Amino acid sequence: MPARQAAALIGDGMVIGASGFTRSGDSKAVLAALAEKAEHDHTRITLMTGASLGHGTDGALATAGAVHTRLPFQSDPVMRTIINEGKLSYIDENLSETAAHIRNGFLPPIDIAIIEAAAIEADGSIVPTTSLGNSAIFVQQAGQVIIEINQAVPVGIRGIHDVFLPEDPTGRAILPITEVWQRIGQQVIACDPSKIAAIVFTNQKDSPAETAAGNAVAEAIAGHLLHFFEQEIAAGRLTRSLRPMQAGIGKIADAVLSGLAGGDFEHLTIYSEVLQDSTFKLIESGKMDFASGSSMTLSEACYQRVFADFERYRHKILLRPQDITNAAEIIQRLGIIAINTALECDIYGNVNSSHISGSHIVNGIGGSADFAQNSYLSIFVTESVTKGCKISRIVPMVTHVDHSEHDVDVIVTEQGLADLRGLAPRQKAEAILRNCVHPDYYQELSDYFLRACRRGGHTPHLLEEAFQLHANLAATGSMKARILQSI
Amino acid sequence: MPARQAAALIGDGMVIGASGFTRSGDSKAVLAALAEKAEHDHTRITLMTGASLGHGTDGALATAGAVHTRLPFQSDPVMRTIINEGKLSYIDENLSETAAHIRNGFLPPIDIAIIEAAAIEADGSIVPTTSLGNSAIFVQQAGQVIIEINQAVPVGIRGIHDVFLPEDPTGRAILPITEVWQRIGQQVIACDPSKIAAIVFTNQKDSPAETAAGNAVAEAIAGHLLHFFEQEIAAGRLTRSLRPMQAGIGKIADAVLSGLAGGDFEHLTIYSEVLQDSTFKLIESGKMDFASGSSMTLSEACYQRVFADFERYRHKILLRPQDITNAAEIIQRLGIIAINTALECDIYGNVNSSHISGSHIVNGIGGSADFAQNSYLSIFVTESVTKGCKISRIVPMVTHVDHSEHDVDVIVTEQGLADLRGLAPRQKAEAILRNCVHPDYYQELSDYFLRACRRGGHTPHLLEEAFQLHANLAATGSMKARILQSI
Repeated sequence: MPARQAAALIGDGMVIGASGFTRSGDSKAVLAALAEKAEHDHTRITLMTGASLGHGTDGALATAGAVHTRLPFQSDPVMRTIINEGKLSYIDENLSETAAHIRNGFLPPIDIAIIEAAAIEADGSIVPTTSLGNSAIFVQQAGQVIIEINQAVPVGIRGIHDVFLPEDPTGRAILPITEVWQRIGQQVIACDPSKIAAIVFTNQKDSPAETAAGNAVAEAIAGHLLHFFEQEIAAGRLTRSLRPMQAGIGKIADAVLSGLAGGDFEHLTIYSEVLQDSTFKLIESGKMDFASGSSMTLSEACYQRVFADFERYRHKILLRPQDITNAAEIIQRLGIIAINTALECDIYGNVNSSHISGSHIVNGIGGSADFAQNSYLSIFVTESVTKGCKISRIVPMVTHVDHSEHDVDVIVTEQGLADLRGLAPRQKAEAILRNCVHPDYYQELSDYFLRACRRGGHTPHLLEEAFQLHANLAATGSMKARILQSI
Repeated sequence: MPARQAAALIGDGMVIGASGFTRSGDSKAVLAALAEKAEHDHTRITLMTGASLGHGTDGALATAGAVHTRLPFQSDPVMRTIINEGKLSYIDENLSETAAHIRNGFLPPIDIAIIEAAAIEADGSIVPTTSLGNSAIFVQQAGQVIIEINQAVPVGIRGIHDVFLPEDPTGRAILPITEVWQRIGQQVIACDPSKIAAIVFTNQKDSPAETAAGNAVAEAIAGHLLHFFEQEIAAGRLTRSLRPMQAGIGKIADAVLSGLAGGDFEHLTIYSEVLQDSTFKLIESGKMDFASGSSMTLSEACYQRVFADFERYRHKILLRPQDITNAAEIIQRLGIIAINTALECDIYGNVNSSHISGSHIVNGIGGSADFAQNSYLSIFVTESVTKGCKISRIVPMVTHVDHSEHDVDVIVTEQGLADLRGLAPRQKAEAILRNCVHPDYYQELSDYFLRACRRGGHTPHLLEEAFQLHANLAATGSMKARILQSI
């Protein structure tokens, strides 16, 4: 049926579970039609997805007032503004947790699932497209299912998915993945045909990933990290295969992974959320044996290349549900090296991934805590300054904590790398000040630390000055104004 | 040999791994002798244990200057002062992590293990006493082993331990515990006899647990929590067996567990760190089927009762290594209800477990994050005020974050209970303000929240006032001075 007719099934107050993870495999037509409908009839829903949607869909829905509650992740600038105005409730969840929260009854029951498919099989089973996210739990739990068959996605994509629905936590099931490439589930999402309320045809690609152009800061960070890996290999703690890698989206992660392609590494693997251009470059370079994720988010050029010769890649990749890619149990067992981006770090190694000046959310925590808490090595990367040096990414105290110092092993900026393993807080501060801070902020941050130490404490702070850099920024547009002396 | 002679084996700069967890099963003689020796020869060591030691041993070592680095937990008031003075490096670790950090080479190699034992077997195997903690990994990794045979512990304690050493993370081993009572290891700690450098005899009980006298605040909190459990049962999310329980040490946890003994519950289980008096009361009441922990920390009276009739209890308890009791994998699989104590909470549900006014550590994070991050339900309890109402435990922004709002499901004070599941930050603030705050602080905290909301943001804050209550406290001895109006 037309998308508009399918959207008419969505009533005011409903809970919708939609496919889509890092802008891949998302609803292209029905959610867009819902935004149009809501302009007229003021339908307001709770919208759950895997993670972010593409094509400005979240922005259109938010502008139309169609969403009163959104979870577990979004990255749309328009929706973000409306969230920060307090007009839309955003439940920013660890990406591993939503499926369990649904199963446990901690979230309201799902009325309708909207799932992008490459095909439907005779028994109702759904062949997913470029992401798996929370699609399987949505189909399992929803009363009705709307399927969008996207004819832009080759049917040959069937087979790269490993659909596994864990039992209820009371079921005491082991998640038996012990190798990155191991399959534990089905190739398709089982679906009772009687639940299929609508089938809509689309023919539109995912929003393409932005290509990470050459970036000196990202390359400097990658250089420090590759040097660190070499040291770990020399110390016997890593081999030339490193360990399964997780990397957040973005230029820095892309530069690090591209750096691996040029380095003396072999039999690399990825166990991450998102497979990006760099994943496929590593496969093409012969250095990557296997990559497991929950979505493929590619540039236009990479997408073309991969799907033009899909047989070359299909046996080296797997897409899993996000409660499997991000499961603490598997991340710990595989001993993952996690590389995530910090919005700001403090001198003691606490990391803010989500909130500008403590109040305004950018995107959300995503899967960063799932990986930081459970990885073998938890690495956070960030530029030391931004906005023409008006903002230092290293501050005395972060204004919002997503990752406590206990879950941060290494911090890297273009200035250098601080290895925080086995250090007490004052030692961590010395390592971060020495290695990571931009020279323009070194004096102020060191001065804060030394004066705080004189006042005492295990993690010395001057509470009345802890956010002085942020106050400077608010007052003058730059953090650089002089830190007030301690009273 | 005499303890003094064994202590002479410990040289300056050595790394010592000693038994002991929540003041149970700790070295009674050799560490005390080391403190004496250090007074004269200035020996300084790195000391790792399971968790806290009894008998003031940490204080004596710190006073003697015998420890330059201490991990992963301590709770001694004398050592705490020296840590906060910056004279002793304290690596405050999640209790699950130390064993892995040792295996991974993230911590320095262990020279000598000092292990309290009930007996040594013919092949060198060690029968542990009232805790297991990190003892097995210390024995496995240490170059030499000093054993303290404590004749005050009945040899009949043999059999309540389940000693399991996971493989290196590269070993990709599943931790196959699917039930609280399941054994996966050995009853004793294997030890190469050639590593045993000394055997010392002692005859001294563990430091007894402080008995939790009747406490109106603790009982009010327990009452709210039991009412919540009844609601969850009525909603079909829990049964009368609840789920395996973890509870931190202290009066409130004791009151909650004692409340369970009086309520309409059955076939209860515990999967926790410490088995306290309340565990054995629940066993005696017939309501508790099984309790798994890493130590037994009992009052004098309870200790007498349990060891006078040990056969009654031995098949209902098990002591495991702390990387097993606190393993993310098992905590998630068993679906644990975790009850931990907050030092302060903020209006958005972030929790500080460890630092007074952001700088001064009390004890440490212990296992609270291991459980909060991975439990089915993460509950934090605290009195709403302390020090004669001069300190509010609920503040606008916590001065140190051990647990982010993502890892906190429920907050309970004697005022009431805030169920934060499925809420966005502003909704969490409303629930905490409505239910948990002391009336004396309600107006100021509400005012902060409303003014912050007017300024905007997903998690609205006024950074310049976020620590005003703490500034009041520092200036006047009470948080109660009026919050400055927003500029």
